[in-house]
Amino acid sequence: MSQTEMPTGRTRVVREPHRGVYDRETANRILDGGIICHVGFVAEGQPYVIPTSYGRNGNNLYIHGSVASRMLRQLKESVPVCVTVTLLDGLVLARSVFNHSMNYRSVVVLGKASLVEDGREKLEALRAIAEHIIPGRWDDARQPNERELKQTSVLKLPIEEFSAKVRIGPPIDDEEDYSFPTWAGVLPLELRAGSPIDDERLVAGQTAPGYVRKYARAQ
Amino acid sequence: MSQTEMPTGRTRVVREPHRGVYDRETANRILDGGIICHVGFVAEGQPYVIPTSYGRNGNNLYIHGSVASRMLRQLKESVPVCVTVTLLDGLVLARSVFNHSMNYRSVVVLGKASLVEDGREKLEALRAIAEHIIPGRWDDARQPNERELKQTSVLKLPIEEFSAKVRIGPPIDDEEDYSFPTWAGVLPLELRAGSPIDDERLVAGQTAPGYVRKYARAQ
Repeated sequence: MSQTEMPTGRTRVVREPHRGVYDRETANRILDGGIICHVGFVAEGQPYVIPTSYGRNGNNLYIHGSVASRMLRQLKESVPVCVTVTLLDGLVLARSVFNHSMNYRSVVVLGKASLVEDGREKLEALRAIAEHIIPGRWDDARQPNERELKQTSVLKLPIEEFSAKVRIGPPIDDEEDYSFPTWAGVLPLELRAGSPIDDERLVAGQTAPGYVRKYARAQ
Repeated sequence: MSQTEMPTGRTRVVREPHRGVYDRETANRILDGGIICHVGFVAEGQPYVIPTSYGRNGNNLYIHGSVASRMLRQLKESVPVCVTVTLLDGLVLARSVFNHSMNYRSVVVLGKASLVEDGREKLEALRAIAEHIIPGRWDDARQPNERELKQTSVLKLPIEEFSAKVRIGPPIDDEEDYSFPTWAGVLPLELRAGSPIDDERLVAGQTAPGYVRKYARAQ
């Protein structure tokens, strides 16, 4: 574990520290399993949290800038952000209301986000975002042209200061509650894909490719 | 639409304003459809975004405080927060990479969160949170006792300054791209419940109740 992977005072899990895990491999697996992230930034003392798409390339997160316009307008060189990815795995129903919980995996990345200016890096970032959302799609779609690249803003956030938090398993009740006459257990939750809906203006003969029909997130 | 439901400069949807909807009924429906929210707050200039459970009671959001310990420690009277709830409904695959999108519904609520001190309000807030997550559960579980109530922190955020954003429907491609030979359409996504997993220490005869077996989020 490198220096940058140690929890800092800002990323140490304060509440329920036994749920905090800090290794990069775990964090990357969670980041790769999500579809959207929630980006937090500050403007005039007010925090904002905006959902957006993202991708990972090595130790960098790339965030699609289109919905972060408020942040981008105030961005000079770089801006402090927090990017959080949460995978909800289940409801944990205990005997007591107090011990109800959820099974989840989440990663919080803190740092300074900067605009990607370099054309080649921006193209690679967009590829990372597209392939993150639906692997296989990039090569099948019409690639971005110069005008579109200029219109698109991408933010880069190094994955240096981060923490992951994971809860798995059954409910943990107080010992005296195990005799309480109610059902207890876990209700698993999963984000699942339905059947693809063809666009009305498809070119004749086009059918949904395998990466659409068999879409599933990496665990 | 009351004064407080008008978008302020802070909640007006800047990017793609046609996706911004501001009425309270729409926002409430989205808030009621989510399971977790992402809470943003600021400490020493750094934004933090933390996933947590929540519930709604009329025009107030109640946020379970256990994971917001960092925020609670710095909380005096009230603290500026942003609570965002996002429902991801599908991937929108256009012909061009540039026009790829997602179908989603999200609500952003800005305001000052305060600790709920009153015992009765706290109990009602916890009931709202529990019933929000899984309706029917509160009455089946062992109710909170005085000690547990004291240990639990609940934050209240009035739903006054808010905005909702919704994208639905097929991809919108540039006219000249409709002849591009690739599949296009929507891949619907839905958070679905699996089969309930019994706790190993169930009292004999307890089976998963209907509100667990038939769990589904309100649309």
